[in-house]
Amino acid sequence: MKIARPLARLIESFQKLPGIGPRTAQRLSFYLLHVPQSELDSFSEALAELKKQTVFCSICKNVSESDPCPVCSDSSRDKSTILVVEQPLDILAFEKTGKYKGVYHVLHGSISPLENIGPDEIFIAELLKRAKAPVKEIIIATNPTMEGEATAMFIKKKLNESGSAKKIKLTRLGVGVPTGADLEYADETTLTQAIEGRREI
Amino acid sequence: MKIARPLARLIESFQKLPGIGPRTAQRLSFYLLHVPQSELDSFSEALAELKKQTVFCSICKNVSESDPCPVCSDSSRDKSTILVVEQPLDILAFEKTGKYKGVYHVLHGSISPLENIGPDEIFIAELLKRAKAPVKEIIIATNPTMEGEATAMFIKKKLNESGSAKKIKLTRLGVGVPTGADLEYADETTLTQAIEGRREI
Repeated sequence: MKIARPLARLIESFQKLPGIGPRTAQRLSFYLLHVPQSELDSFSEALAELKKQTVFCSICKNVSESDPCPVCSDSSRDKSTILVVEQPLDILAFEKTGKYKGVYHVLHGSISPLENIGPDEIFIAELLKRAKAPVKEIIIATNPTMEGEATAMFIKKKLNESGSAKKIKLTRLGVGVPTGADLEYADETTLTQAIEGRREI
Repeated sequence: MKIARPLARLIESFQKLPGIGPRTAQRLSFYLLHVPQSELDSFSEALAELKKQTVFCSICKNVSESDPCPVCSDSSRDKSTILVVEQPLDILAFEKTGKYKGVYHVLHGSISPLENIGPDEIFIAELLKRAKAPVKEIIIATNPTMEGEATAMFIKKKLNESGSAKKIKLTRLGVGVPTGADLEYADETTLTQAIEGRREI
């Protein structure tokens, strides 16, 4: 006996998602058999319309319904400070703090030779172009991983080459122990960086 | 800044799935932004068509494209032995063994007062009706959980009441230590049942 084809097709689609294995894909698909058709329809529509109803903002490359996006078209935001992130989700994290009043730039990834992602695959050229306009500060907030660090270094190098770096303050997020963490479990690199980045109290 | 509405809608749909929290729902939805539209369309279609193109087999209640399902309409299967399972996925597990030649009955759940699932919410009445026809054996293969055991007991009681139990051999799956398990980590109930169910060698 085989799984009915309509189910098999759905299982296959779920399985293509990152972090969803064959067992989870089966479980989710069988679960959906017990869900009202109206819910299936709205899920189905959300999928089909996802990319049709969204664009990458032509300025910051964030996912948006409008172009420019709400942040780039907000006159109260400081256009001379650009915070560079890897993913649109990272923007949400910064917006939740309510403390950042500048604008963003989404790279949509990081340089990763292992995954065949070079500088041209992500929106670095677009950032360098933005840096030519009057910009005071670029805060690089790529992830504190090998790939994130390499991407930050690459951007720094390119800004230096283009001469933009002279007039722009280039910064990186502060590093150290996160609030609420237990020092006992902190890794050596984090602790080293926390000591190097110690502040007067 | 809020998440663009088309994305928010998709995140909401993912979040309704069992075991998918808000973070995973966000991650999956943002991932899908980078997937070709053709893949989104086929995922979307699989969802919309899932229930339209499948039926519950009128005999065994398994999910199928045809009615009766391939197992019930297979003349080589022994119709006098019915194996009762909670979910369609359980059938796949038994079919993989290749050892079972009887037919199935899918309850689509188990009796669970905590989740407000009583005997009438699952396909027990349909099983009792099947038991009135000439059936030699009913193997109850509900899960070895509180709910699965309670469901098995309820079915036994109902078969006794209806008088069907007299002519039918009612069995339950063998219990004990699973192949490949490490005895050190086996729980007490399993070990007790394994001792009670010991076999001559």
